[in-house]
Amino acid sequence: MRAAVLHAAKDIRIEQHPVEPLAAGQVRVQFRAGGICGSDIHYYSQGRNGDFVVVEPLVLGHEIAGDVVEVGSAATGARVGDRVALYPARTCGTCSYCREGRDNLCPETFFMGSASKRPHMQGGFQELLTVNADQCYAVPADLEHVYAAFAEPLAVCLHAINRAGDLKGRSVLVTGVGPIGLILMMAARWSGAGTIVVTDLVDEALAAARRLGADEAIRVGDADRLTAVSQGLGGFDVVLEASGSPAAVDTAMEHVRRGGIILQVGGLPGGTVPIPAFRIMAKELDVRGSMRFTRAAFETSVRLITTGEIDVRPLLTDQQPLDNVAAAIELASDRRRAIKVMVTG
Amino acid sequence: MRAAVLHAAKDIRIEQHPVEPLAAGQVRVQFRAGGICGSDIHYYSQGRNGDFVVVEPLVLGHEIAGDVVEVGSAATGARVGDRVALYPARTCGTCSYCREGRDNLCPETFFMGSASKRPHMQGGFQELLTVNADQCYAVPADLEHVYAAFAEPLAVCLHAINRAGDLKGRSVLVTGVGPIGLILMMAARWSGAGTIVVTDLVDEALAAARRLGADEAIRVGDADRLTAVSQGLGGFDVVLEASGSPAAVDTAMEHVRRGGIILQVGGLPGGTVPIPAFRIMAKELDVRGSMRFTRAAFETSVRLITTGEIDVRPLLTDQQPLDNVAAAIELASDRRRAIKVMVTG
Amino acid sequence: MRAAVLHAAKDIRIEQHPVEPLAAGQVRVQFRAGGICGSDIHYYSQGRNGDFVVVEPLVLGHEIAGDVVEVGSAATGARVGDRVALYPARTCGTCSYCREGRDNLCPETFFMGSASKRPHMQGGFQELLTVNADQCYAVPADLEHVYAAFAEPLAVCLHAINRAGDLKGRSVLVTGVGPIGLILMMAARWSGAGTIVVTDLVDEALAAARRLGADEAIRVGDADRLTAVSQGLGGFDVVLEASGSPAAVDTAMEHVRRGGIILQVGGLPGGTVPIPAFRIMAKELDVRGSMRFTRAAFETSVRLITTGEIDVRPLLTDQQPLDNVAAAIELASDRRRAIKVMVTG
Amino acid sequence: MRAAVLHAAKDIRIEQHPVEPLAAGQVRVQFRAGGICGSDIHYYSQGRNGDFVVVEPLVLGHEIAGDVVEVGSAATGARVGDRVALYPARTCGTCSYCREGRDNLCPETFFMGSASKRPHMQGGFQELLTVNADQCYAVPADLEHVYAAFAEPLAVCLHAINRAGDLKGRSVLVTGVGPIGLILMMAARWSGAGTIVVTDLVDEALAAARRLGADEAIRVGDADRLTAVSQGLGGFDVVLEASGSPAAVDTAMEHVRRGGIILQVGGLPGGTVPIPAFRIMAKELDVRGSMRFTRAAFETSVRLITTGEIDVRPLLTDQQPLDNVAAAIELASDRRRAIKVMVTG
Repeated sequence: MRAAVLHAAKDIRIEQHPVEPLAAGQVRVQFRAGGICGSDIHYYSQGRNGDFVVVEPLVLGHEIAGDVVEVGSAATGARVGDRVALYPARTCGTCSYCREGRDNLCPETFFMGSASKRPHMQGGFQELLTVNADQCYAVPADLEHVYAAFAEPLAVCLHAINRAGDLKGRSVLVTGVGPIGLILMMAARWSGAGTIVVTDLVDEALAAARRLGADEAIRVGDADRLTAVSQGLGGFDVVLEASGSPAAVDTAMEHVRRGGIILQVGGLPGGTVPIPAFRIMAKELDVRGSMRFTRAAFETSVRLITTGEIDVRPLLTDQQPLDNVAAAIELASDRRRAIKVMVTG
Repeated sequence: MRAAVLHAAKDIRIEQHPVEPLAAGQVRVQFRAGGICGSDIHYYSQGRNGDFVVVEPLVLGHEIAGDVVEVGSAATGARVGDRVALYPARTCGTCSYCREGRDNLCPETFFMGSASKRPHMQGGFQELLTVNADQCYAVPADLEHVYAAFAEPLAVCLHAINRAGDLKGRSVLVTGVGPIGLILMMAARWSGAGTIVVTDLVDEALAAARRLGADEAIRVGDADRLTAVSQGLGGFDVVLEASGSPAAVDTAMEHVRRGGIILQVGGLPGGTVPIPAFRIMAKELDVRGSMRFTRAAFETSVRLITTGEIDVRPLLTDQQPLDNVAAAIELASDRRRAIKVMVTG
Repeated sequence: MRAAVLHAAKDIRIEQHPVEPLAAGQVRVQFRAGGICGSDIHYYSQGRNGDFVVVEPLVLGHEIAGDVVEVGSAATGARVGDRVALYPARTCGTCSYCREGRDNLCPETFFMGSASKRPHMQGGFQELLTVNADQCYAVPADLEHVYAAFAEPLAVCLHAINRAGDLKGRSVLVTGVGPIGLILMMAARWSGAGTIVVTDLVDEALAAARRLGADEAIRVGDADRLTAVSQGLGGFDVVLEASGSPAAVDTAMEHVRRGGIILQVGGLPGGTVPIPAFRIMAKELDVRGSMRFTRAAFETSVRLITTGEIDVRPLLTDQQPLDNVAAAIELASDRRRAIKVMVTG
Repeated sequence: MRAAVLHAAKDIRIEQHPVEPLAAGQVRVQFRAGGICGSDIHYYSQGRNGDFVVVEPLVLGHEIAGDVVEVGSAATGARVGDRVALYPARTCGTCSYCREGRDNLCPETFFMGSASKRPHMQGGFQELLTVNADQCYAVPADLEHVYAAFAEPLAVCLHAINRAGDLKGRSVLVTGVGPIGLILMMAARWSGAGTIVVTDLVDEALAAARRLGADEAIRVGDADRLTAVSQGLGGFDVVLEASGSPAAVDTAMEHVRRGGIILQVGGLPGGTVPIPAFRIMAKELDVRGSMRFTRAAFETSVRLITTGEIDVRPLLTDQQPLDNVAAAIELASDRRRAIKVMVTG
């Protein structure tokens, strides 16, 4: 079967890989759609995602939907023919994190398409995937695979929203409206948030945010406008920081209200950011990280896409066959032209 | 009446001030004891507390106990002869913060002995204080004023502990065991915390922490020992950061467990600290500021000192008459010789 | 000025009352619209609302909108000509409840149109109302008074939803879809709730619930259907009990999932209900009361009506001039014909 | 090996049972100490525990400590010679409750010594127990088994305290001070509770509560005293209801403050209790059930007993060899003579 294998920066090759044997509890899934994420772009363009360096061949991709084509003898809960969104992680199931519903923090996590461990954890941009049965979440047969594959980024955002706590009626600032920032904005709206303002450097991203429901979209640099809006609100109740940029962290600290919440969703592995630490104390802020997502968030994500309560369709701006994965990643990295780009198989 | 007035760094003078007229809702309190806090030390030694610069004469002191000597015609809840701990803040009472029990965040706060606003807000190191009746919290006549004056720093710590959430059975690291760090440690113990470890640069402070109940006190720099302890615990559930030092913030981020809580209690106004921001996300941390204290925390503080549930007496290492305030501050700034120094009147 | 005064069951009279003098901090509001609530119906039809008996003349009405026509010399925040929704309560502002954002629990509460205290607290069904300035919440001039008056019942529901905690993705059962149950359902939807099921005895109410967004509306008595739905969901995450009927409490306890939440919103003052107390323990339930609303909830309510985020218009089924208040109450008590009936002036 | 088998009310027999085969993941534990719980007393004296009727032979006992004597080939985490407290439950580990840290609500729970399911789940009053390796919690060799066996009832109380939320500085009423009520009181004290008041019908229980740290112990029926204390406090912040009696539920509702919390810990399976449901709403109460305990609570329990942070020793009033189990249960049921009685082997 064919797999898209990254060997080094800009060096991604379509190769023939042998099909792995199927263990009793496993399921074989035929790849049908895979979203390109910021980390895929970093791995491809720089051969690394922050501190995580590609030192051996790596199949990218962790936003995957497909069809079940083979089921191991002891695999329960999945049937041949099922259309599925894939939960991209495998966790130990027994540590204190797994037992307390914070399985996203399990130290034994295997996460598809990541160079954070050695050997690297192979991802989903390949024709046939061998996964545990409990990674398969069935979706209706009439939900297109390219939309089912949004289960992963939406789960990221739902988990972040959960970490932010109750948003009903709260004013929200989203700093950075790439795909995650846009979905955060949609998830905040779905959660009953009040005024939602976004910032970004890219006009096309701001325009998309406006189309998708932002009350106001402000270009980074237009400090006067942001200050006016923020002061009108008495500061934002919640800032969803999805850019990972030091400037955005500063913006967040300045425009969040006293006692408010800053949620760090994005960010490159490694490095440091200079922060006005006194402000955390003097404004009595809550600065919270959000790491990937729990199974509970993924389940909700699948349900919301299935019911259409959150409509991900406007986010899909292009799709390319697996063989064109390099071109697809190049496109995805141009925020003026693309929101979410999918590879299909 | 005499007042200890700071004019510039190291320039504190005992001056005669006129007694303010007493408004109907106010109360006159004779100064009897006042604790010296880190901010007093900064103001005295450098003429500033971080960004807050002394630009006009400032009476220091906000950890005050005294006796009610005069009661305005409309002042309720205080009687002549009452021994009182003074709540050092006046808040508006009507803003959303005041109405939601977060009065410590009221933008209109007047806080004794601070140069954060102009005109500066005059503090308590003076013979007679004019305060609102509701700033007076009566304590028993047999509680010495020097212990009643601990109501303020203990309130700081109780509020911080409240911000940290439920500590029952949680492992706690306290970085920095000056007076606030020591009281945080005692408050954590009172809250049912499990293992409590402290770090500091000063051997005498570490020895005090051991005497007052730390399970382990580790010198900053002994990274091996801290790592061994931290790993044995699977990381600390909660870090109470009371030093404000960038190195301590880094230590906190390294040794807190995934999903853990870092509470920023100390810190100088202004400046930035480089933090490994990705860790906040990857470890899914909660970094929370704690700003002074609410009235609710102050009330609890007074009660705990009164009942002796938290025994502050071992913290008092010296007391000096008001006229010796400069010497008292010098002494308080030497952490090898002093924990808490009180000025008395 | 005219006032609608209840003297005894079914004995409501339009009388001439003198206009009260206006204190410095007060505001005069001309009555324009007032909703009829379940307690108004009980007072009118039985001369009592559970344990609260009408023993002296009582002006009913607490869901009021009007126009500011006079402003006291010291009243701030309201101007002549303002169209306002009236906050129907006056609280002390200084007790621990008021200071912690739970002002709805203030023991000194004055609440319009209630016989729970003596002298009774006079309500809003009168031409001119004298209120404190801070009871006035301005709404846009183009929002009809009859919709502004929904601020009160919506606030009841928003507060209840707040008490229920985060509803994102949760399955919700609403028992009883009178006006409050219907608005609860709408508020739950706005909060991101997942499946919402309602029960009621009245077909017309069930039909209204379906029109307004219930996923399923089940007649009380159709136990098989409710059981099937409940089992399909693994039990409801949250039950919003808005009927006050003992049978509904039992239904709630049976169909809520283990670890779930039951919120008691409705209910007559007095009496007891036999509950399967062991179930609270064995299913580890949270049974929470919700009492009226806080100012914070009222503010959100006004905002949601103003922006249309919650569209209350379909709930208004009839309006009658103040002189017809008796007929209006009679109509409001017939759940087959009416949802919310307004009196207008 | 010998087992104490209940056949019907008052009919408990020491019988010879075959030793079960040991599966690969299992561990054999020699019985050394077992506490007698209220449910054991009910089963023995009435042949039922509320709705749970003994319809086949049942070995009682679920508060068990012993020594590991044999370890299955695949059992990890336990070694021959370990002194252990036994976690009395086996849960599925995969349901949503298990995955979210609420394993005490797992529908598949096997709980030792209970007739709530058929076949009945056999308990620990037998010489040799066959358990899963992960039910064994090692304790130090110098902790007597009779104290290690308190891990179970203390876990019940720690879980209840967790459900009550943060108790720091809160006033607490404990209704009913049998063994669970007394331990609740001790756990509340450990959690930083403020004033703790208890009520009971039995003078000896009240005396024990006073010895063990109650600020006040009031006989049920002395309503004046309870009212005076309650009013002095402005109502109790939290009531821990450990009696299961309808009168105590009523007392709780009357004396809890507005916005307070009532925790239902005790109670017989089945039956209903008439409650003033309106009060739940009007006082905006939180009535919370607490069901057994989670693994997390059990782990904390073992730790607190091991470190002595909670000293259970004064609770042990008698111990009897396994052959005398009937006499031991009779003794345990006399609250004037006994607090906790242990069976030993």
